[in-house]
Amino acid sequence: MRLEAPRRGFDDSEFGARTTKAQARMAEAGLAGLLLMTEPEVRYFSGFHTPFWQSPTRPWFLFVPAAGKPVAVIPEIGAELMRRSWLEDIRTWSAPRPEDDGISLLTDLLSPLASGGAKLGVMKGHETLLRMPLGDWERLVAALPGLEIADATGIVQGLRMVKTPAEIEKLRHICAIGSAAFAKMPELVVEGQPLEEVFREFRRTAIGLGADDAPYIVGAADQGGYADVISPPSRRPLRRGDVLMLDTGCTWDGYFCDFDRNWAIGRADDQARQAYDVLWRATQAGIEAARPGNTCRDLFVAMSAVIAEMDDSGGDIGRFGHGLGMQLTEQPSHAAFDRTVLAENMVLTIEPSLSYGDGLMMVHEENIVVERDGATLLTTRAAPELPVI
Amino acid sequence: MRLEAPRRGFDDSEFGARTTKAQARMAEAGLAGLLLMTEPEVRYFSGFHTPFWQSPTRPWFLFVPAAGKPVAVIPEIGAELMRRSWLEDIRTWSAPRPEDDGISLLTDLLSPLASGGAKLGVMKGHETLLRMPLGDWERLVAALPGLEIADATGIVQGLRMVKTPAEIEKLRHICAIGSAAFAKMPELVVEGQPLEEVFREFRRTAIGLGADDAPYIVGAADQGGYADVISPPSRRPLRRGDVLMLDTGCTWDGYFCDFDRNWAIGRADDQARQAYDVLWRATQAGIEAARPGNTCRDLFVAMSAVIAEMDDSGGDIGRFGHGLGMQLTEQPSHAAFDRTVLAENMVLTIEPSLSYGDGLMMVHEENIVVERDGATLLTTRAAPELPVI
Repeated sequence: MRLEAPRRGFDDSEFGARTTKAQARMAEAGLAGLLLMTEPEVRYFSGFHTPFWQSPTRPWFLFVPAAGKPVAVIPEIGAELMRRSWLEDIRTWSAPRPEDDGISLLTDLLSPLASGGAKLGVMKGHETLLRMPLGDWERLVAALPGLEIADATGIVQGLRMVKTPAEIEKLRHICAIGSAAFAKMPELVVEGQPLEEVFREFRRTAIGLGADDAPYIVGAADQGGYADVISPPSRRPLRRGDVLMLDTGCTWDGYFCDFDRNWAIGRADDQARQAYDVLWRATQAGIEAARPGNTCRDLFVAMSAVIAEMDDSGGDIGRFGHGLGMQLTEQPSHAAFDRTVLAENMVLTIEPSLSYGDGLMMVHEENIVVERDGATLLTTRAAPELPVI
Repeated sequence: MRLEAPRRGFDDSEFGARTTKAQARMAEAGLAGLLLMTEPEVRYFSGFHTPFWQSPTRPWFLFVPAAGKPVAVIPEIGAELMRRSWLEDIRTWSAPRPEDDGISLLTDLLSPLASGGAKLGVMKGHETLLRMPLGDWERLVAALPGLEIADATGIVQGLRMVKTPAEIEKLRHICAIGSAAFAKMPELVVEGQPLEEVFREFRRTAIGLGADDAPYIVGAADQGGYADVISPPSRRPLRRGDVLMLDTGCTWDGYFCDFDRNWAIGRADDQARQAYDVLWRATQAGIEAARPGNTCRDLFVAMSAVIAEMDDSGGDIGRFGHGLGMQLTEQPSHAAFDRTVLAENMVLTIEPSLSYGDGLMMVHEENIVVERDGATLLTTRAAPELPVI
């Protein structure tokens, strides 16, 4: 049974609108251009979509000028695919070429900015990385005296946080596939099955239901609960009395779902049932607080108030959810430090967690879209009581 | 039918040996420590293995001192998993914390080096990236006056290039799974099937045969050949006269295979058959040249000589293969610029490509391990003539 898929890709007009919006913000910040080099950012403004980014060998660059279409500076191996995008100016080199992996092309492109003492935006803030060799970055900066480098993290993350209708359609589709895959798990999971095989069954099921891939699967199972939520699978067989948790990021057309489910194997003890109940209600409080005008901090506080019934430690995970889109985790963070104001069309995870018993923890997660009158679930809400398989 | 899997993970002694080797090279280079922050490097020295790196939110750090075990400086969410490793000194903070994501912990750790004017190795060369915010890196360096930063790319890549027997066992296993999955394709592929479904079938098949995942699948199909080798799947149905290529990176226990296969659908034209034959023989020349003492450049030259029968353009891909291990592509590169001397226990891809006809290209790829007397295939060698489905 396959869910009907929306159309892949985006209209060119969508990239035009994203670029125009970025340029308006760049003008406010006095930026003459934006140099991007990470997969989601390059894809966001160009539509360039390839798994080839998994190879760390080659850097890729996209320059967003103050006006007009972005300019791609990329390895020749990507030229054919980039030519199918809305871009017109595509500059390539035969990569890998360690002595000059795009640096002289970038120097040529940015020299006019440097000689005018202009400001170039790059992403150098929270949740970013420099996807090029640090040595090449230092050489590039040295070759462009006069160029001022400014942090453009807020501009790009601010744009990406609020999704377009076409992005929400993709996110809705992959969340529906993830929900359908979790719904099948009670038929597929049996006592005695190694956790590794549970993961494998889930992955095959999600892909069979229409996911392009299920790149992120973590989980755990142990007596009465689990102690860790980021492990790869073990060979440990499921036992009666285990609490099993699976957390997945599945993808469709480059967009992620990110949520989890818990089950008890054979029987559930009272403490696990109670933890589940508290987290279910904390999730509900988070969903209800996810309205335009509230902040991420408000969501954190709303969830914390419920969690405190059972656990007042504040937890080890650092936050109770985050943005969701082309990345498994995106800005913003539902944390005490994050005062981002929620806006219509933000897609978020609601992900409270708590500690209980002797070093055990439990996590719950749903995915929502913020609409004018409040949140709408993209995932099929978890059962209100810990399901027993 | 599932292939019997080797044991997951490594003995602690393996991490000890890797660390000791690194420290010997660090001593030669005058490095008082090594600061690592990328997934394969942190895993190489600690055994810390989690898909959680897919979330870009949190930075992770591993410090290798001049003597003794590495020190982990990581988000608290990873503490439980890291405690199962061979490390003893694990320092954590509650991440994300944008105002101090590990920076004060690193400053404390590195201050003794800075005050002694010591040299710290970081990877800043070819095929590296800075997996932390550039702004945080700049703040860290500013907080450690006196510390000299040196490029340690060659030390780490040099170690990782030569695999241990336990690593080769994992690579052999995933290459066998990939080979078994490709062998099933003729039963699964039919004319009229959308390319997207071909990819999906391959992914499910590989996982069903024992792969943990098949994160990398690219490919193409078109009349008489294809024009691009890095695209995600389209909905285009397979047609008689197409040449179909699938290239995959499947994983088992964190190690990749990376190879491809070509098929003709219904019938093959002469030009496609000829391109296939030339590439098959170029691959053979590459395999035969992969002996200890030869260089990557020698492999490139050996393959180029055969390819020149049909194509003397040099190609757009930039190289004819690369190292293989924890990453889909690793050092070295079979390219004219790379004079790395091949050594026993290097695991490599042999990956010639050529251009023909009106903008078409073809790629072939096998995976090998270099042994004392020459290369041994890890993959089941492709058929010598273009197979027709």
